[in-house]
Amino acid sequence: MAITPWKVLSSRRLIDDRWMSLRADRCEGPRGVVLDPYYVQQPPDWVQVVAFDPDDRVLILRQYRHGAGVISTELPCGTLEPGERPIDGMRRELLEETGCVASSLVLAGSLSPNPARYTNRVHTFVATGTLQVQAQHLDPTEEAEFTFMPLAEVLGLVDSGGFLQALHVAALFLALRHRGAIT
Amino acid sequence: MAITPWKVLSSRRLIDDRWMSLRADRCEGPRGVVLDPYYVQQPPDWVQVVAFDPDDRVLILRQYRHGAGVISTELPCGTLEPGERPIDGMRRELLEETGCVASSLVLAGSLSPNPARYTNRVHTFVATGTLQVQAQHLDPTEEAEFTFMPLAEVLGLVDSGGFLQALHVAALFLALRHRGAIT
Repeated sequence: MAITPWKVLSSRRLIDDRWMSLRADRCEGPRGVVLDPYYVQQPPDWVQVVAFDPDDRVLILRQYRHGAGVISTELPCGTLEPGERPIDGMRRELLEETGCVASSLVLAGSLSPNPARYTNRVHTFVATGTLQVQAQHLDPTEEAEFTFMPLAEVLGLVDSGGFLQALHVAALFLALRHRGAIT
Repeated sequence: MAITPWKVLSSRRLIDDRWMSLRADRCEGPRGVVLDPYYVQQPPDWVQVVAFDPDDRVLILRQYRHGAGVISTELPCGTLEPGERPIDGMRRELLEETGCVASSLVLAGSLSPNPARYTNRVHTFVATGTLQVQAQHLDPTEEAEFTFMPLAEVLGLVDSGGFLQALHVAALFLALRHRGAIT
């Protein structure tokens, strides 16, 4: 059996604003089956970072996340501006959200948040030598506390359900793989 | 600074069908800022599994994923039916997608696919003793090949960008943490 891409018979835009870019495709799938509507989301690429400080602690944030309705413990992350390179967007988000800069910032991998539903990629960086150099500079809609936490404590939070953003658990995987800690 | 949940001033349903449940909230956020529309997706919970066979190889599938437009190498996964327990949905999806059963199926963690945007959870299971006992039984819209792959090869695929579903990279993290391979 060969796996083949679907044919797009037609496509219409449903939502197109700053916060949601959603289209519905009419597709011809396997064996001529028609899938309609098939929803596809097209946000800009996202960036996220596992940022270690000189004591090998991880930079984490606490933010209210309205989808799940929880105060979530997460990594610094954000959305690229049009034309922005992932590494530049990552530096910008890190500085805005926490006032921190890193002595080294390296791409650990680019994943899909969910290839069934999304067109975009989420780029994961590993930062070392992370230090706060200025105050937070959040958007008016944002409110976030940050701290540096020992890696073992972050892993404990994953175990206990206190670190539940799946994209950031994937980031931990890429970062630990990048340092040779997963073989 | 205390992080506080937003107030929902009003809420309207935008899409409500089998494939998408989307609402738009008008929220009052930090310092009285109004966020409108704030999009929230409410799919059923999802399940996914890192399923090892008796030779410690991982069950993986290749499927066309129309969001990203790629043939994606992934883990078995799916959506819970109404009222279905995660472990029962996981057993059902595993059997439908691959014809496999596992001698042990254990929950390794429940994450959010993205707490900013989604209300649901994705439950990750670890299976051992996985064996094919019957033929695949796919939906008419599904087409998937599966195989058992040594774990080292799966990790190599993550490195090379050939295993890009972030939720499934998070699943690998939880499974390896569960077996004591991440400390």
